[in-house]
Amino acid sequence: MTTRTVLACFLVAAILGSTSLSAQSRKSDITSEIRAALKTQQEAWNRGDIDAFMNGYARPSSTIFVSEDKVTRGWQTVRDRYKKKYSDRAKMGTLTFSDLEITPLSNDSAIVLGRWRLKRAQDQPHGRFTLIFRRTSDGWRIVHNHTSAAK
Amino acid sequence: MTTRTVLACFLVAAILGSTSLSAQSRKSDITSEIRAALKTQQEAWNRGDIDAFMNGYARPSSTIFVSEDKVTRGWQTVRDRYKKKYSDRAKMGTLTFSDLEITPLSNDSAIVLGRWRLKRAQDQPHGRFTLIFRRTSDGWRIVHNHTSAAK
Repeated sequence: MTTRTVLACFLVAAILGSTSLSAQSRKSDITSEIRAALKTQQEAWNRGDIDAFMNGYARPSSTIFVSEDKVTRGWQTVRDRYKKKYSDRAKMGTLTFSDLEITPLSNDSAIVLGRWRLKRAQDQPHGRFTLIFRRTSDGWRIVHNHTSAAK
Repeated sequence: MTTRTVLACFLVAAILGSTSLSAQSRKSDITSEIRAALKTQQEAWNRGDIDAFMNGYARPSSTIFVSEDKVTRGWQTVRDRYKKKYSDRAKMGTLTFSDLEITPLSNDSAIVLGRWRLKRAQDQPHGRFTLIFRRTSDGWRIVHNHTSAAK
């Protein structure tokens, strides 16, 4: 190989290496930002602050919450559903998210599979959720939540 | 304005117009391809062919099916779950997907919210699903399905 060819090969390797490194670090940034958003949501719930919890959802009217056969549409309506269903501190219980699996789909969207559990005096409802997060001007927010519960 | 400025403005408008048009047509392509994939799946189910139905799912071991509190992982395991749960034609019934809302998240991923219903001799189980589709070398395939049923 000529010196020029060797240099060209090094250059290509360096570019490919830095691209893949930066993709890796972007993926890790997305993951840690979403993990932090869910931790903030969980903490808000556990101090009884549904409005702060709702800050984890994107504001648009296209934001969706799905459970059983029911679709709730729009940030305000999703908030109203939470407020009605968890109308006092005892019903809210203590929320834990766990087993989070965060998969970026693009630079501004990601899917999260996880477990939820509410510890309450009388019961411990629990199940799984699939969240779609989008990167908004306010940070990563949930635009779609499909939740199911153990029978 | 000088003639040159006017021409420049026309050029910019034309470029913006064609970009937005091609984004529109890409979005419409994604939507119709995914709609076709789901129609194919429904037809396969309704002739009792679970293997053809399973062709709608991506092959990787990371493919996920979520229902209630249970996560089924991997194409083969998802297939085995369907084969076990719908072990004969009567249990399979007649499947209808409806109210499909397809939202592309990027050029190679999209989310689908929809309704499912099985008409069977004794019952009509039904509910909602959230699907994540990815564009693979074989076309659009489901990589994640979170399904819930009416109580």
